[in-house]
Amino acid sequence: MAIMQPASDRGVLYLDDLHVGQGFVSSVHVVDEDQIKAFARQFDPQPFHLDNEAAKSTIFAGLAASGWHTAAITMKLLVESVPLAGGVIGGGNEISWPKPTRPGDALRVESKVAEITPSRSRPDRGMVVMRSETLNQRGEAVQILIAKLVVARRARSEQA
Amino acid sequence: MAIMQPASDRGVLYLDDLHVGQGFVSSVHVVDEDQIKAFARQFDPQPFHLDNEAAKSTIFAGLAASGWHTAAITMKLLVESVPLAGGVIGGGNEISWPKPTRPGDALRVESKVAEITPSRSRPDRGMVVMRSETLNQRGEAVQILIAKLVVARRARSEQA
Repeated sequence: MAIMQPASDRGVLYLDDLHVGQGFVSSVHVVDEDQIKAFARQFDPQPFHLDNEAAKSTIFAGLAASGWHTAAITMKLLVESVPLAGGVIGGGNEISWPKPTRPGDALRVESKVAEITPSRSRPDRGMVVMRSETLNQRGEAVQILIAKLVVARRARSEQA
Repeated sequence: MAIMQPASDRGVLYLDDLHVGQGFVSSVHVVDEDQIKAFARQFDPQPFHLDNEAAKSTIFAGLAASGWHTAAITMKLLVESVPLAGGVIGGGNEISWPKPTRPGDALRVESKVAEITPSRSRPDRGMVVMRSETLNQRGEAVQILIAKLVVARRARSEQA
């Protein structure tokens, strides 16, 4: 299955357009208490994500977003800020949460291309390692994501 | 900050109660098209997660859940199935999605304790590496998660 986009799909980046060190900065997403609790009710119903009072006596010492909520918000910001042909498609990831996301945090994602590996067997694609830091309004990392992305190559006729 | 639970908190597992190889099996969560599209609209608005027709010509060859949606559902099933004292609190993770989650998939999570490391500096806690496979109704892994969890130890008076 080819993952090429039509040639009319301008403004997007193919593997051939990327270089190691290339950076992308997202817009800002402000996280509030309602978002934190709504996500937690659905996917991570633990006291430190749901209940301001109960959260105080936990390891988080106050209400904190689920790490998976931080990951989901990061994905939203990545999709907006990294315009890859064929989309942002991750295969494997390392993910860590050095600090919790708190109500009121204004998150942005800064991404950098770390590795580019054209596929040997499939000339229409390659693998890109992207390092994305999700930062709060104080510049502290609340998430570090190292993602292996599948990225489309330009059709050969376009490379001439 | 201690992460102990009160001594009355029975039925939960402390670090001291775990052993390498110990397993946990979750209940089943059935994923439908509405859930896939609702999550995607909020966090991963790409055609292969939003639009059945458009998804056919992508690398997914049909509608697929966001990997982060699979991760969030996995967390819901983990919270229910792994009754750790202090909660399921992840620090760092490796996560991969060997196959996409499709509409109608019935997911369950099978987890196994891979490593247990008491903290040298903090006698109230330790680190557990948990390997969790999220399986569909055909037993195929749609996600493999290797999570480093912070787990509370029993208070010393209880260990006697």
